Amino acid sequence: MTQLLTRPAAQSAAPETSNRPHRVVIVGGGFGGLYAAQSFGRATHVEVTLIDRRNFHLFQPLLYQVATGGLSPGDIASPLRGVLNRQKNTQVLLGDVVDIDPEQQQVVLKRGKGVPYDSLIIATGGAHHYFGNDHWEKFAPSIKTLEDALEVRRRIFLAFEAAEKETDPVKRQAMMTFLVVGGGPTGVELAGALADLAYSTLKSDFRTIDTHETKIILVEGMDRLLPPFPEDLSANAADSLQKLGVEVRTQTMVTAIEDDRVRLRSGDEESELLTKTVLWAAGVKASGMGKIVADRTGATCDRAGRVMVAPDLSLPDHPNIFIIGDLAHYAHQDNKPLPGVAPVAMQQGKYVAKLIQHRLKGEPIPPFRYRDSGSLAVIGRNAAVVNLNWIKFTGFPAWVIWLFVHVFYLIEFDNKLIVMTQWMWGYFTRNQGSRLITGRDADKVEEVYSGHRRHS
Amino acid sequence: MTQLLTRPAAQSAAPETSNRPHRVVIVGGGFGGLYAAQSFGRATHVEVTLIDRRNFHLFQPLLYQVATGGLSPGDIASPLRGVLNRQKNTQVLLGDVVDIDPEQQQVVLKRGKGVPYDSLIIATGGAHHYFGNDHWEKFAPSIKTLEDALEVRRRIFLAFEAAEKETDPVKRQAMMTFLVVGGGPTGVELAGALADLAYSTLKSDFRTIDTHETKIILVEGMDRLLPPFPEDLSANAADSLQKLGVEVRTQTMVTAIEDDRVRLRSGDEESELLTKTVLWAAGVKASGMGKIVADRTGATCDRAGRVMVAPDLSLPDHPNIFIIGDLAHYAHQDNKPLPGVAPVAMQQGKYVAKLIQHRLKGEPIPPFRYRDSGSLAVIGRNAAVVNLNWIKFTGFPAWVIWLFVHVFYLIEFDNKLIVMTQWMWGYFTRNQGSRLITGRDADKVEEVYSGHRRHS
Repeated sequence: MTQLLTRPAAQSAAPETSNRPHRVVIVGGGFGGLYAAQSFGRATHVEVTLIDRRNFHLFQPLLYQVATGGLSPGDIASPLRGVLNRQKNTQVLLGDVVDIDPEQQQVVLKRGKGVPYDSLIIATGGAHHYFGNDHWEKFAPSIKTLEDALEVRRRIFLAFEAAEKETDPVKRQAMMTFLVVGGGPTGVELAGALADLAYSTLKSDFRTIDTHETKIILVEGMDRLLPPFPEDLSANAADSLQKLGVEVRTQTMVTAIEDDRVRLRSGDEESELLTKTVLWAAGVKASGMGKIVADRTGATCDRAGRVMVAPDLSLPDHPNIFIIGDLAHYAHQDNKPLPGVAPVAMQQGKYVAKLIQHRLKGEPIPPFRYRDSGSLAVIGRNAAVVNLNWIKFTGFPAWVIWLFVHVFYLIEFDNKLIVMTQWMWGYFTRNQGSRLITGRDADKVEEVYSGHRRHS
Repeated sequence: MTQLLTRPAAQSAAPETSNRPHRVVIVGGGFGGLYAAQSFGRATHVEVTLIDRRNFHLFQPLLYQVATGGLSPGDIASPLRGVLNRQKNTQVLLGDVVDIDPEQQQVVLKRGKGVPYDSLIIATGGAHHYFGNDHWEKFAPSIKTLEDALEVRRRIFLAFEAAEKETDPVKRQAMMTFLVVGGGPTGVELAGALADLAYSTLKSDFRTIDTHETKIILVEGMDRLLPPFPEDLSANAADSLQKLGVEVRTQTMVTAIEDDRVRLRSGDEESELLTKTVLWAAGVKASGMGKIVADRTGATCDRAGRVMVAPDLSLPDHPNIFIIGDLAHYAHQDNKPLPGVAPVAMQQGKYVAKLIQHRLKGEPIPPFRYRDSGSLAVIGRNAAVVNLNWIKFTGFPAWVIWLFVHVFYLIEFDNKLIVMTQWMWGYFTRNQGSRLITGRDADKVEEVYSGHRRHS
C-alpha cells in the first residue's frame, strides 16, 4: 500500500492549489483533532476548519478527578477558540457533523450547509460500551464527557448524604458501597480516588456515618488489573489499591445491574452485592461516525466499530480522508490495533498534518509509526505505576512522574497553573473543594434516593 | 421591645439545659447561616444543625464571574461539611425545609422526620423578582444559583457561536446584543464583565464576526446607576462602563420581553431592541420561607416578602425564632430596612449566635446594630467604585481594594488560593479558561438558536 504515500498530492486539490488555499476539515477537537489543527499552525496556503459539538477540548485523562471532586470542569477543559486563536489559518466551528459526502467532498452539519474539504480528518473518538447491555447505563454511568463526570460526582456525594440520614443499617451500607466495573487505567484511577475520598478527604465530614465503613470494590473480568501493563506492575497496582482499602476482584464479571444491587460471577460462583452506586469503566467502542464513514466510503470497521485505515491513516479508496485516534483501527507490526490512548491520537494528528503539507509540495513521507514512550496509571494520592518500556516505576516515584507528565501536557493549553495549584493545595490540605452536588434539579435532593434515581 | 433582651434564657430550653445540649437549628447555609454556625464553634452545651438544600456555601458576590467564564463553579463554592467539619458540635443536614412548627418546636423536611430545635435561625435568603412578570424569566434569566450562572454562561457563549455562523446581518447583530436589566451592583458588574469578555478576551477568537461590534446595554429605571452609592460614584461608574463600551440608559424601563426582542420605555418614548440575550439583575424578593414564617407565627412581612423582626432579630411572639439576612426586614434608626448584602447577613449571623449563648448564661445583650463599613462594586477588569463612608475610591485603586476584600473573605474558606491564582492568571493573560458551554443537552448546539431556546 506504499503507493498511496508516493502520490504527489491529494488529487482533487492539485489543480486548484495555485488559486486558493487547500481546505482541511477536521472533525473532533479531542487529542487527535486538536494536535492535527495545531500542526498546521505555520502552514501557509492551507485553510483549516475544526468542527466540534462542544466549544472546548477536554483533557479526558483527568476526568475521573472531576467525578471525585478533586478538580473543577474548567480546570481540565480549554475553549477550542482560545487554544487556536493565534492560528490565523484556522477557523473553529461549533457544529454536529451528521454525515460526510465523499463525492461532493463535504461534511454535512445537522443544520446549515455542507462544509467543503480538500482533505478531511475524522477524529471523533470513542463512546462507552455496555456489551449489549445498554439498559445498564442508567444504573452504571461511565465517564466520557464533563456532564458524565458531574453526574457521577453528584451520585457519589449524594450517596454519602443519603447514608448520613439513613437509619436502616443494610440500606446505609448499600449507600456506602461503590462498585467500579473495569480494571483498566480508568477503573484503577477511579477506585483509588474513591478510596482517598472516603477514607481521608471526607473522614471528618459526617456525624452519623463513619466513612471508614465505605466499601469500594473494583471488579475486572481478566485475571489481573491493567492488562496491557507488565505483570509485576499489575500486581503492584492491586497491592497498592488494597492498601488504600479497595477490594479488588479479578476474574469477576457483572451479570446484572439493578437500581440497588448487582449480580457478579466468578467462575461458577454467583454473588449479589447491594450497592446504590456503580461506575462503569469497562468498555469503549468507536463513536457512531465509524459506521457513517464505512457506509459512505466502503471502508471496513472492526468489531469495536473502529475504521480500518491504510498505513498512512487514510482510507484505502479515499486518500484524502484520514481517520485518527480512537476511531481508527491501525494495525502495527504485530497486527494488534494501537490502544485508544491520548499519545496515539496526538501522534496521528501530527502525522496527518505533516503528510498533507508534504503532499501539497509533492513530497512522500513514510507510513505512520507509533512511538510508544510508555504508559502510566495513578493509584490514589501517593502511588502510581509507570512503564517506560525500558524502566518501570511504582509507588511514590511513579506518582511524581505521573504528576509531571500530566502537568507537562496541560502546559500546552491554558490550565496548567491552576491545576497544579489545586493539586498541590489538595495534596497538602487533603481537602477537595470541588465536591459539589450540582445539576438542574440538584436542590430536589430528597427525591433522589427515595425509590428511584433520576438519570441524565 | 427591649424586654425581650433582658429575659434570662429561651423559655422552652431553660428547664432542660442542665440535662442536654441546647439545640440550635439553622436553616440556610448562605452568609447568614454559615456565620451563625461558625460563631458556635467553641460553644459547649450547644448542638448545632445546619440544614441546606445544597451541599455547599456559595460565594454569591462572585457568581457573575462564573456566568461570564472567568471562574469555575468550584472556585466560589465550598462544601458546607468541609467548612464546618472541625466543629464537633455541628451537624450538616442536606434537606429541604418545607415548614416550621413553632408549637412542637421543630422544622419539617420534605421527606423524613421533623428536626427539633430549642432556638431556630432562619436564613434562607432571597430569590429573583420579576415584578409580576414571571413569564419573563425564561427569556431573561437572573443569577442566583450556580445553575443559573452556568445557564447564563451557556447563553452568552452560544450567542457568539450562533453569530459566527449567521449570515443575516440583522439576526447576527441581535445575537451580538446583550441587555442587562438593573443598574445595581450585580448589573454593573455583569455589564462590565461582558464588555471585558467581548472586547478583549474573545477579540481574536472568531473569524467571521468582529466581537468589537458586540452591543452591551445596561438599563436602569432610576436616574442613576448604583442608587445606594453617593452620586459622584454613580457618575464615575457610568463613565467607566461607557469607556469600556457599555451603553448605559438610566430612567429606562423594560415593558416587554420576547424571544428575540425587548421593548423599552424612557419617559414617553418607547423603543424596541433586537436581542437574543437578556440578563435580569433588577429585582430581589425574600425566599418563600417568609410566607411560611408569617403563616405559622403571625409575624408580618413587608412588600418584598421579608419578615419584620424585633431589635434582637427574633420574632415578636417567638423569642427563640430568629430571622437573619435577606429574609429579614430589620429597620435601623432611619426606618429603612438594611440592604440585602453579605455583610448584613454575616453580622446578623454572628449576633444571633452570640445572643443565644448569652441567653443560656442568663446575660442580656444590646439590640443588633449594623456596622456599615462601606460598599463596593467592580466595573470590568481595572476599575471599581468603593465607598468606605469616610473615604471614596474610584478606578484602579478601588479595583485593588475590591480584589483584596474579596480574597480576604474567601480566605475564611478553602478556595482563596485557587481563586487568587486564577484571577492573576486571567489578569495577565486576558484569558478566561472557564468559558465552557455545558449542560445536559449542551451537545445539541444547533437546536438552541433555531426557532426556540431551551430553558432550564
